[in-house]
Amino acid sequence: MECQDYSLKRYTEIDNLNLNPLQRGGVLPVEARKALMEFSDGYSMCDYCAGRLDQISNPSITGFLDDLAKFVNVDVARTTHGARESKFAIMHALCKPGDTIIVDGNAHYTTHLAAERNKLEMIEVPNNGYPEYKITPEMYQKTLEDTIDNGIDVKLALLTHVDGNYGNLTDAKAIGEIVHKVEIPIILNCAYSMGRMPIDAKELDMDFVVGSGHKSMASSGPIGVLGLKEEYAENVLQLSKKHAVKEIEMLGCTSRGAPIATMMASLPYVAERVKHWGEEVKNSRNFVKEMEEIEGIKQLGIRPKEHDLIRFDTPVFDEIAQKHSRRGFFLYEELKKRNIVGIKRGQTKWFKCSVYGFNQDQINYIANSFKEIVNMHIKKSK
Amino acid sequence: MECQDYSLKRYTEIDNLNLNPLQRGGVLPVEARKALMEFSDGYSMCDYCAGRLDQISNPSITGFLDDLAKFVNVDVARTTHGARESKFAIMHALCKPGDTIIVDGNAHYTTHLAAERNKLEMIEVPNNGYPEYKITPEMYQKTLEDTIDNGIDVKLALLTHVDGNYGNLTDAKAIGEIVHKVEIPIILNCAYSMGRMPIDAKELDMDFVVGSGHKSMASSGPIGVLGLKEEYAENVLQLSKKHAVKEIEMLGCTSRGAPIATMMASLPYVAERVKHWGEEVKNSRNFVKEMEEIEGIKQLGIRPKEHDLIRFDTPVFDEIAQKHSRRGFFLYEELKKRNIVGIKRGQTKWFKCSVYGFNQDQINYIANSFKEIVNMHIKKSK
Repeated sequence: MECQDYSLKRYTEIDNLNLNPLQRGGVLPVEARKALMEFSDGYSMCDYCAGRLDQISNPSITGFLDDLAKFVNVDVARTTHGARESKFAIMHALCKPGDTIIVDGNAHYTTHLAAERNKLEMIEVPNNGYPEYKITPEMYQKTLEDTIDNGIDVKLALLTHVDGNYGNLTDAKAIGEIVHKVEIPIILNCAYSMGRMPIDAKELDMDFVVGSGHKSMASSGPIGVLGLKEEYAENVLQLSKKHAVKEIEMLGCTSRGAPIATMMASLPYVAERVKHWGEEVKNSRNFVKEMEEIEGIKQLGIRPKEHDLIRFDTPVFDEIAQKHSRRGFFLYEELKKRNIVGIKRGQTKWFKCSVYGFNQDQINYIANSFKEIVNMHIKKSK
Repeated sequence: MECQDYSLKRYTEIDNLNLNPLQRGGVLPVEARKALMEFSDGYSMCDYCAGRLDQISNPSITGFLDDLAKFVNVDVARTTHGARESKFAIMHALCKPGDTIIVDGNAHYTTHLAAERNKLEMIEVPNNGYPEYKITPEMYQKTLEDTIDNGIDVKLALLTHVDGNYGNLTDAKAIGEIVHKVEIPIILNCAYSMGRMPIDAKELDMDFVVGSGHKSMASSGPIGVLGLKEEYAENVLQLSKKHAVKEIEMLGCTSRGAPIATMMASLPYVAERVKHWGEEVKNSRNFVKEMEEIEGIKQLGIRPKEHDLIRFDTPVFDEIAQKHSRRGFFLYEELKKRNIVGIKRGQTKWFKCSVYGFNQDQINYIANSFKEIVNMHIKKSK
């Protein structure tokens, strides 16, 4: 059998400044790259396994999980294959097909898929629309109360800590309290926050927090975090009747290989970087200020920014595209000439981006590049 | 926060001859190690994603999945997080809680967990006991017919192609035909076969084949294969109602990162190595012959070996342990002195091992080391 060439190279995305928010928090520090080389072989995590991944002491997965639990302040922590797999497992353990859950209207598509795979009904809390798209505690409360008033038994609530469309940070603490008043457990989806900013599950009044290693914890994909309160451990981490040490929802073991090695190696680095979250937010706000100096560019979502994921409306680029010989591709191509990537090819009306992890010089260079591209074309066309 | 030292080193297992059957098929070739460095960052597979992992053309996941489908002769192939996750997804799509499935008595614990997580009842086909522990087509047929005669509606069948306790190869083709006569779909669990030996799902009359990248396909964990007949694709790969391109059982995307990069890079290597399976079987048989020259050592399971995973009864080592100052640890320690690892510390009555991928000199060295250890101690004690 003759295999095709799969083009397993990634020079462009590694060698250039990558603005894709999905990529910014998943860049590995050197320690994690070293760990990857140690634990690259198949079941390399399992040399000293006595039956359960989370209890392996060499390498110290058990020590790592203790640290991870402290890092987000939960009673128990597990790794999964991703935030989506964590959400699926919680829903699967707590709900039955046909049950209803409440989720915010900015929830990630994987929240919907986790619910759909579990055959759950979803009630959505709407955001407040253009231009803020904010999920407010008031609207969460109203939607929840209306649902209950309609005689619907809500089994579980979910809140997206920071959504992937606008980078809005929600008031988790307020919403946690609202949901707990009616004694419903709540999941906080921290895919875009855990590993970027500090998370304190108990302070935020959350029963479950889920995180994404590849998105925000400087880990190789796929790996996620599942953090929970002790009172839910018996249910969500229920043991098999046939194989007494194995946790059913984890299918025995989860992230058995390279990704967990990188997450372990990265945790000290990630624990340190969340302390500097304030600087990242400041950088993001400055970047917005620079970008909005370009006529017609406007940041959507909550202002000022409380997260590095930024959504811009960019009618000026769309205007240029109309007259440009390369049409919508011009922006991608002009950016690439300047060693900037991560804005989708052909996209000009709006885009999402992030300058997370870049230094001030890099951020200035990026903002100036956008300005230069606009000036170049606007002048030319006038 | 101060993180512990997780001991992220693996010198011992990499630098010595590792007999652990779990590790033999997951060793990465150099191409895969290079791919790991390219795609180590979080969502690195997703630079050019237009909404679905399996449709990404750069790197060519779509080309890879086509090749993978050809490699095992199925209509459609997907990657998952492991063989267990593939089994769970199939059961979840095809069965309802309370449904009954039939599985062989040598099934891996993850088959049981996948069924338990799906709340399924299992009927087990017994093996023929000591010393062969064989799953025969006759017994599979009898158990299936008895179950149906008892008025039980069997929704799905599963057969373990090669089990992890005895390394017995089952007669998949015969059992596939038996199960299809009563129109029940069947899964072949190829965790220990796909990537070591040639698999032809259609020739074996299987509706589903599942494989394990970390176990037998020279890939970093966790990654699995799900191969299926076209007629089941609509069900098992059903699309989301809310997000039209996303497959529900895959939760949108599965192995989004480092492991799939290694499996892609390894496929040409793996496709080549399965052609030499006959030599591996011959090597395993020779190794058994050498080992059985030691008095009291006996290979369990089907004879002669049809797979590299070998289970030995080793009363001679247990006898030595009784009188040894290091008790049961002596074997592990004596082997380690000789740069051989992979037999569990303290285990002497029996063990599982594999010489898969070793050359003849290495295999001779390993067999001679066992002989030397026995001679040394038996002489000493006499």
